[in-house]
Amino acid sequence: MTGEGSARDRILAAARTLFYRDGIHVTGVERLTEHAKASKRTLYQHFSSKDRVVEEYLRGIHESGGMPNEKALDTVDSTPRNRLLAIFDGAPTDRFRGCPFHNAAVEAADEMRGVHDVVHEHKLWFIGRLTEVATEAGATDPYLLAHQLAVLFEGAVALATSLNDTVALSYARSAAEVLIDAAVRPAKD
Amino acid sequence: MTGEGSARDRILAAARTLFYRDGIHVTGVERLTEHAKASKRTLYQHFSSKDRVVEEYLRGIHESGGMPNEKALDTVDSTPRNRLLAIFDGAPTDRFRGCPFHNAAVEAADEMRGVHDVVHEHKLWFIGRLTEVATEAGATDPYLLAHQLAVLFEGAVALATSLNDTVALSYARSAAEVLIDAAVRPAKD
Repeated sequence: MTGEGSARDRILAAARTLFYRDGIHVTGVERLTEHAKASKRTLYQHFSSKDRVVEEYLRGIHESGGMPNEKALDTVDSTPRNRLLAIFDGAPTDRFRGCPFHNAAVEAADEMRGVHDVVHEHKLWFIGRLTEVATEAGATDPYLLAHQLAVLFEGAVALATSLNDTVALSYARSAAEVLIDAAVRPAKD
Repeated sequence: MTGEGSARDRILAAARTLFYRDGIHVTGVERLTEHAKASKRTLYQHFSSKDRVVEEYLRGIHESGGMPNEKALDTVDSTPRNRLLAIFDGAPTDRFRGCPFHNAAVEAADEMRGVHDVVHEHKLWFIGRLTEVATEAGATDPYLLAHQLAVLFEGAVALATSLNDTVALSYARSAAEVLIDAAVRPAKD
């Protein structure tokens, strides 16, 4: 628990909790290390700056497959159409804080290039996955459908944050059904 | 220029520039007053706290009719359908920073209740306007179409921020066309 390796893990665990719940700028190094039960000196031994902690925090979420809703694309034993719709299903019951990548982009503004790089990487990866599943679903233009669904998903999560109401996800789902139906040619007899 | 009235205006003008471009937490009272060429004492004569400056900053945008794209709903000499689509047209050529209301909700997290109140008020007002125009456009369920378009708009603006690429607006527009066509019953012969 007190080794150097676990201190790094505790710092990243604190980052996952505090950056997501409270925000990145609000969470200073002081608060981060206090929550992680680590010293500032230890933090700077593992990360050259706070920005690096933010990057590693996001990279960890990216490498685990993103938000829970995003992981629904990979559900086994489900049709491609249902997997596309499943990203809009399920939402946390406590206060919804939206997409950690988007929120980081908002807070980073014109600064933190490394953070923007991880955000881009994640969003483009997710659109790529949507394109693959849209292809499986038989969309005539899977690239277009994937981008439309990506906008809907970003919007559902963002509006749920703005209004603190995850009902936006169900409106997005109903829109996604219309878009998928319009994009998929009916099977020939 | 140096009167008390104009000092308040200069502080709010500084807020509009700095809160939007750089972010709310990053912009401290020091930077705000420096940019506004006002003293901290003057700021606190006009606003009881920085949170109040944030609230007034958002209230000013709300009372002016929202973001330029949102104002497109009120274009005269345009069909209801085209006005619904026009919210996705046009985007700034410089770095796109998204929706000031949503960004404030992200930064506020669980704090700043007054800020969340203005964000809610604006978003619900916009959905209400969308519902009116969707009704004019002949949607069978204008409330549903309005919410679907609100999610698309929030998503276009948020994804444009995440990726620093306003092409998301054109994907949203293409999706909006499909949704409007599906929502509007064809005219009877």
